[in-house]
Amino acid sequence: MKIGIVGGTGEIGEGMALRLSPKYDVIVGSREETKAVTTCEACREALAGQGIPCSLSGVSNQRAVDEGDVVVLAIPFKHVAPTLKTLGGFEDKIVISPVNPIERETYFYYAPPPEGSAAMMIRSMLPETATVCAAFNNIAANRWKKIDEELDYSVAVCCDDAAAKQTVMEIVNNVSHLRAYDAGPLAAASMVESVTPLLLNIGRFNRMRDVGVRFV
Amino acid sequence: MKIGIVGGTGEIGEGMALRLSPKYDVIVGSREETKAVTTCEACREALAGQGIPCSLSGVSNQRAVDEGDVVVLAIPFKHVAPTLKTLGGFEDKIVISPVNPIERETYFYYAPPPEGSAAMMIRSMLPETATVCAAFNNIAANRWKKIDEELDYSVAVCCDDAAAKQTVMEIVNNVSHLRAYDAGPLAAASMVESVTPLLLNIGRFNRMRDVGVRFV
Repeated sequence: MKIGIVGGTGEIGEGMALRLSPKYDVIVGSREETKAVTTCEACREALAGQGIPCSLSGVSNQRAVDEGDVVVLAIPFKHVAPTLKTLGGFEDKIVISPVNPIERETYFYYAPPPEGSAAMMIRSMLPETATVCAAFNNIAANRWKKIDEELDYSVAVCCDDAAAKQTVMEIVNNVSHLRAYDAGPLAAASMVESVTPLLLNIGRFNRMRDVGVRFV
Repeated sequence: MKIGIVGGTGEIGEGMALRLSPKYDVIVGSREETKAVTTCEACREALAGQGIPCSLSGVSNQRAVDEGDVVVLAIPFKHVAPTLKTLGGFEDKIVISPVNPIERETYFYYAPPPEGSAAMMIRSMLPETATVCAAFNNIAANRWKKIDEELDYSVAVCCDDAAAKQTVMEIVNNVSHLRAYDAGPLAAASMVESVTPLLLNIGRFNRMRDVGVRFV
């Protein structure tokens, strides 16, 4: 299976490329293809250092969409709408949203768009034959990149299509020690996204780093 | 320290009485004092069966407020506003809200009041000298009552007053294996409350019971 990562040179995108490319063909996209190529080289080197084979190629964001069976939108919320307006070709794709709309005052808080969640906004911007799944929302960027450490977290997955949800849950369960949980339809993604500012607050007010979540 | 439980004969209220009365003087309140007395007897028996001494008394909801240094509002969200309108005497009290405004369609979702959260609504209904803390929001009622099982969860605590927050976090840390985390000001409680419908969805869609949460 080919997984395209839009924004694959950002912090979370690069971390996801590191974690997914040992298991899947990962197509790293970027606004600048040369940056994507550089990121792939860095990932290959890091993985080779651990003796881990991988499949990575660096391309434009549009080619990451075109070539991916599954497309991950690894971009900050504020860049999602402008980026999606420049891209096409999402027909029949499974689109994973790890995106969380968060604002910050003296604390972090959930600031969803009028659609109710980033996931629902993304669905409204894509063609009807694209299937949006919320997943990987609550994992800190730093954790993705520390490939010598296991990711031992729960991952809530929201999606309206049972087959696409199953595909995404299998991808989740193939990454480190992540465990996928069905968290209902896409409309329930707001409750998954809003866990992230809660975790940021827990980190901030208890002097902890990169807090994650487990459902027990 | 005396802890008054408004709604102490409900499912969560009774469970909290069971878990708190071995460590604190617990004043169980109810709309009907006789029900509170009966609940206390049942709790005493259950705890005696495990050889655990406790301090419990059954009274009216108003007396639970009057006698408690800390008052827990162990009532369903829809009953909170009507109940608070019948009660007074909250001046200078620490008021714990474990309340979660949740609605259900084919899935559970967070349905906060205009104030942004149950905790913020409760604050708006109480005198200024009362200090509201959100805590114990994400623990299933069934788990509270199974006193032969440890509660091994994380508990996010939101409050605007540092001393009151410390008091509530100490109470949390005195219950079974619960671990309290500072989750910021009361305005951040919406993100704590909305974890509960997420956990209900995880339970429902993965055939799990009484799902809880750990921050790791």
